[in-house]
Amino acid sequence: MGVGHHEAAWRHPRTDARRILDVGHFQELARIAERGKLDSVFFADGLAVGPRVERNTQSIFEPVTLLSAMAVATEHVGLIATASTTYSDPYNTARKFASLDHISKGRAGWNIVTSAGADEAANFGLDGIPLHSGRYERATEYLEVALALWDSWEDEAVVLDSGTGVFADPTKVHRIDHSGEHFTVRGPLNTPRSSQGRPLLVQAGSSESGKDFAARYAEAVFTAQRTLDEGKAFYTDLKGRLARYGRRPDELKVLPGIVPFIGSTEAEAQALEQEFTDLISPDYALRQLSNMLGIDLTAHALDAPLPPLPPEAEIQGNKSRYRLVKELAAKEDLTVRSLIGRLGGGRGHRTFAGTPDQIADELESWFTAGAADGFNVMPPYLPGGLEDFVAHVVPILQRRGLFRTNYTATTLRGHYGLAAPANRFEGSDERSVAKVG
Amino acid sequence: MGVGHHEAAWRHPRTDARRILDVGHFQELARIAERGKLDSVFFADGLAVGPRVERNTQSIFEPVTLLSAMAVATEHVGLIATASTTYSDPYNTARKFASLDHISKGRAGWNIVTSAGADEAANFGLDGIPLHSGRYERATEYLEVALALWDSWEDEAVVLDSGTGVFADPTKVHRIDHSGEHFTVRGPLNTPRSSQGRPLLVQAGSSESGKDFAARYAEAVFTAQRTLDEGKAFYTDLKGRLARYGRRPDELKVLPGIVPFIGSTEAEAQALEQEFTDLISPDYALRQLSNMLGIDLTAHALDAPLPPLPPEAEIQGNKSRYRLVKELAAKEDLTVRSLIGRLGGGRGHRTFAGTPDQIADELESWFTAGAADGFNVMPPYLPGGLEDFVAHVVPILQRRGLFRTNYTATTLRGHYGLAAPANRFEGSDERSVAKVG
Repeated sequence: MGVGHHEAAWRHPRTDARRILDVGHFQELARIAERGKLDSVFFADGLAVGPRVERNTQSIFEPVTLLSAMAVATEHVGLIATASTTYSDPYNTARKFASLDHISKGRAGWNIVTSAGADEAANFGLDGIPLHSGRYERATEYLEVALALWDSWEDEAVVLDSGTGVFADPTKVHRIDHSGEHFTVRGPLNTPRSSQGRPLLVQAGSSESGKDFAARYAEAVFTAQRTLDEGKAFYTDLKGRLARYGRRPDELKVLPGIVPFIGSTEAEAQALEQEFTDLISPDYALRQLSNMLGIDLTAHALDAPLPPLPPEAEIQGNKSRYRLVKELAAKEDLTVRSLIGRLGGGRGHRTFAGTPDQIADELESWFTAGAADGFNVMPPYLPGGLEDFVAHVVPILQRRGLFRTNYTATTLRGHYGLAAPANRFEGSDERSVAKVG
Repeated sequence: MGVGHHEAAWRHPRTDARRILDVGHFQELARIAERGKLDSVFFADGLAVGPRVERNTQSIFEPVTLLSAMAVATEHVGLIATASTTYSDPYNTARKFASLDHISKGRAGWNIVTSAGADEAANFGLDGIPLHSGRYERATEYLEVALALWDSWEDEAVVLDSGTGVFADPTKVHRIDHSGEHFTVRGPLNTPRSSQGRPLLVQAGSSESGKDFAARYAEAVFTAQRTLDEGKAFYTDLKGRLARYGRRPDELKVLPGIVPFIGSTEAEAQALEQEFTDLISPDYALRQLSNMLGIDLTAHALDAPLPPLPPEAEIQGNKSRYRLVKELAAKEDLTVRSLIGRLGGGRGHRTFAGTPDQIADELESWFTAGAADGFNVMPPYLPGGLEDFVAHVVPILQRRGLFRTNYTATTLRGHYGLAAPANRFEGSDERSVAKVG
């Protein structure tokens, strides 16, 4: 987001960097996405200044606060924000997303992250990165609390009978009485259930723990896959894990990222990509690469290959991104300079330069081959790159019958073809506040 | 807020209770306040379902999320949200309010609370209420962290020079390196400084600890004062404490609450108030009174006086509200039923029924007598009660030269006549990220 997914987007003449602080810019992005009948807009987020603030900064606004302003400028498009389970509390997070879900009338989604960065840890009293396994254990309990809180009001709990003075039916509002290793939470949440039941759950970790977590909880998964074969393998692997948690494969949507450079000819698109590559600041990119790998490369020669990297098992940060970068560099025998260029568009997500038809072909081939249920479109520059995608690629997909020509649902869950989730308390008086106060 | 400050507002024909879940209602309230040239709108908040959800529920939406949607529907009015220092983390809170401050272009305020309720404690892993003294110690350190984070970007830090590739000047972005009893936070914040420097700080505790905290940090204080003499004493006391912290009396605005019932005659206004009193559900009001006092009165006879109450020093909850209720009941020899009626409008805030001229007289007398710098107007029903205040009381105050006829500033700090605060790092390279990374 910001003014584009490419790390040098803010320097390119197709953007106006001052927009990063202007809420009107973000409202415009949501309106463009809605014009294109897209499912949702999505904000990544972090809880620290990015590497080398001199060269770039991401995630300036707390995303739920920003999405609320975008919600009231739109009617259909979903609104997905990232929030960390490591550096927040489940009651506050459940309420924040429930609030956005009401404000948007059922269009909120939560991208669940466990915060792998050392810079983030330092802002929350930790010397190092919390252990990978510990982060996922906490995340699992966190989700159980949040899910219970979103169930704590049944659908029909709010009565609003002014004559009899019954505001809510206390037999339909429930304590959760959670008591676990990390959290003790009585409930109920102080926000009623939303029209889509609860916010859509999204996840992006592709480590073993991440995939299991996704198979258990996620309804959509953002993933960085660089080749069709890798994409198919990931898709098959992840979908195959759902049965363990009593879920059907279609209850989770796999959405690989793509950074599209669009041109009227392939050469024009490639030239545009090269313009962006040429604007990369190597010092920034080196710091970013160092953060991705958890290894200081800031003094490393740009025209040398990567130094030997430790095995993935020793990494406490983002394991899947580590593996992706390591494999990319090895497979194609890249220098650090070339690697930086390849990562500049989407930090590991697939970059594709071509005509609208070529991009539509590429998306169709992944979809029909069973590597994707849809895509996380990450325009390299904004709003222009999103406008071009909506104006030129979406109509091709629509003509091919691959994409909706109009919204048929009003909730984010509806856009994904997912039913509202069942409520564990529905019809039960278990822990109703009418009984236990 | 919601559909009114009176606890039975949602039952009265002048309100539509369904509006409590409609963001459009809250946007309309902000627009009405702006039409009346009011300084700000303000949301109280709590982190638990209120007493007896059957009868009422308050604070449904997380307030910063809601205020963001109101920010983009207005241009001038300030936006103040409550957030707890006990059940959140300073990095997240500082960022959330900084985000709202940017989205609103300098109109955000933070009402700082320490969360005295047992119901809230139970949602955050605590068996009882955290000790009063401990809450304020944590709040003090919390504020020091938040203030440092808001200073961590100097005003001119964001450069956005696309030619040279300088996004921010790293000599003007600073680590805070806070290490204290409750928090260890490196910084910088990942949101630049806003146009009003930082969010306006508001406080409402009137205990000894609360008043000292306000004198040290607050720029506006909401307070419940029932008589002019009490109001003057509070005003003088609080203003007198500022010098201890090197502050001038005019750097803090004292804003007593008032719940105005407006009628074209005094009798009509009083009849309107009586209608609301008659709609109070005694079971709800008793639970609410029990929560205020920290004593279970739910089985107490309505037509008996209050039972003997323990001394204030033994109370761990909201001490000032405890004292107010205890004194009110004793002074006027009230039964519990009468006490409930007197508290229904503003839970201890002064209720006043009269004509627009009488209300204007009352406000003027407090202002000129040195009991108030302004008021926290708490309409008993919404939006009608706010519309009436803006249409009928504000013009009288304007004619008397007591209130602005147009906004002269664009920030909340400007509406209060406060200068942007100095930045501790201005012009210094202390802990600049250019040096320490």
